Amino acid sequence: MKNCSVFAPATVANVGSGFDVLGFALCDIGDVVQVRESSTPGLVIDSIIGADNIPLEPEKNVCTVAAQALLNSLEKKPSNGYSFSITKKVAAGSGLGSSASSSAAAVVALNELLGSPFSRHELIPFAMKGEALASGAEHADNVAPSILGGFTLVQSYEPLRVVKLHYPDDLVATIVHPHIEVKTADSKRILRQSIPLKTAITQWANVGGLVAGLAQEDFELIGHSLQDVVAEPTRSMLIPMYELVKILSKELGALGCSISGSGPSIFMLSDAMNIAQSLAESLKDLYMDNLISCDVYLSKINKMGCQVIQ
Amino acid sequence: MKNCSVFAPATVANVGSGFDVLGFALCDIGDVVQVRESSTPGLVIDSIIGADNIPLEPEKNVCTVAAQALLNSLEKKPSNGYSFSITKKVAAGSGLGSSASSSAAAVVALNELLGSPFSRHELIPFAMKGEALASGAEHADNVAPSILGGFTLVQSYEPLRVVKLHYPDDLVATIVHPHIEVKTADSKRILRQSIPLKTAITQWANVGGLVAGLAQEDFELIGHSLQDVVAEPTRSMLIPMYELVKILSKELGALGCSISGSGPSIFMLSDAMNIAQSLAESLKDLYMDNLISCDVYLSKINKMGCQVIQ
Repeated sequence: MKNCSVFAPATVANVGSGFDVLGFALCDIGDVVQVRESSTPGLVIDSIIGADNIPLEPEKNVCTVAAQALLNSLEKKPSNGYSFSITKKVAAGSGLGSSASSSAAAVVALNELLGSPFSRHELIPFAMKGEALASGAEHADNVAPSILGGFTLVQSYEPLRVVKLHYPDDLVATIVHPHIEVKTADSKRILRQSIPLKTAITQWANVGGLVAGLAQEDFELIGHSLQDVVAEPTRSMLIPMYELVKILSKELGALGCSISGSGPSIFMLSDAMNIAQSLAESLKDLYMDNLISCDVYLSKINKMGCQVIQ
Repeated sequence: MKNCSVFAPATVANVGSGFDVLGFALCDIGDVVQVRESSTPGLVIDSIIGADNIPLEPEKNVCTVAAQALLNSLEKKPSNGYSFSITKKVAAGSGLGSSASSSAAAVVALNELLGSPFSRHELIPFAMKGEALASGAEHADNVAPSILGGFTLVQSYEPLRVVKLHYPDDLVATIVHPHIEVKTADSKRILRQSIPLKTAITQWANVGGLVAGLAQEDFELIGHSLQDVVAEPTRSMLIPMYELVKILSKELGALGCSISGSGPSIFMLSDAMNIAQSLAESLKDLYMDNLISCDVYLSKINKMGCQVIQ
């Protein structure tokens, strides 16, 4: 029986001003899902390594829910079943697209086993079913960059249109994940459901500036345009040391800094690896000095997205 | 005594989703302002051709108010005065940046006479003083493209940051100006001062898509991203035949269609001159059949912005 293992990168969604629409993929950090054909029909989770509290029941696990969505849309269903082994490196509740990484890896691996009936773009809606299970909403801002790689914009949901954006090669992200839990649902609840028109205009001016800055490789413009006036003002209150991290990132020369997804991870973008590195070291020290454990990552933008590794 | 005449193009602001932040400049249609040095100190309006109801008092005319703002920021004030002759081709209240064209032409001509102490970007805030006089708000979404040319994004007001966007050369605009009056102030009043977060997200997804579409020369994406879910639903009700124009533009192959500025002009973007031309003819017929007089313009994007013509 055939099997396939896929690495799906962790992702930074929102990217400052691009609340609910922008995202980019990270290198090295991500989940691996192995899918194996099995003679028993149906989907089974064999093992989950690297996380507790993730359900083994196929109808409660994002991998199998996403995989089932893919199978449902095949005209000719396979007669065999599939079993899944999940190796999690992206911590749940980190704000780095943990559920998206697992969902993305599952559908890309299954698609590979089936002889690639779907394109990468076509796999996004299936992985979104995993997101719906995890957070109650079929959002694409993490699964899109995890599957496609690079910097993505979800331009529309109905119909789904995901755009790969041009971005400068030199862009480097520094990520800090302070080990506190912020549930996506809680983080969504503290947002106002209605915003002043003026605030909205500021935000879309920044989204326009960010996309233009990426396209025109204008690092200064990228920095100015990362500012999020919608979610950051309230969500940042849930993240320890947020203001200090922001000051530090400015002092050390980052282009900008904002919340990754719904937090608590914070990302910074820089135009040079040495800046990103000195940020990473200072962030480690800052959280350690304040007795908060954390993980710090340094990453260029992942061009590839999901990768078949076996 | 020296003199200088400048042509300042009419402009399409908002550009669908880019409410208050995007704008582009048109070819051929625009105002001309001639500024002449005079031995009498102070600013004087000598003549206004092509419009009634535009005040000759320097403190009530956008040209002289903008010019005065420029003079106020000079360290060494000139001892002579200046007189202005204004030839208006952009109809006031058309939604094509009429006041912006006059303000832009005035400051560019005066700057030229002074030996260009200011860059084009630096002239924008002076022209914005003319806009403040005309509409009560120092907005830049018309003066920026009129002065700089091309497609512009006002990424920030404090500090003012205007970005020139890359766009495809083939882009053509068809504009129809039905001869009814919509006052900018009225058009602003019918907008809600607070909008649902979901609506705002749709709008900034479209702004991101529009900037990306322009940058990546993706005409389909430009078309999809022009959709304005904030101002168009209410403002379009003030414009006769709006829904029919929209249907027509789709049928004839335009990329998209929306309100120019606060209306009543409507713009359509196309990727080929023959489409833009057939649109122009059909629009003329449509309004004529319904006994509404109108002007119709066909224009590529004006790369140059203001031009010194003498």
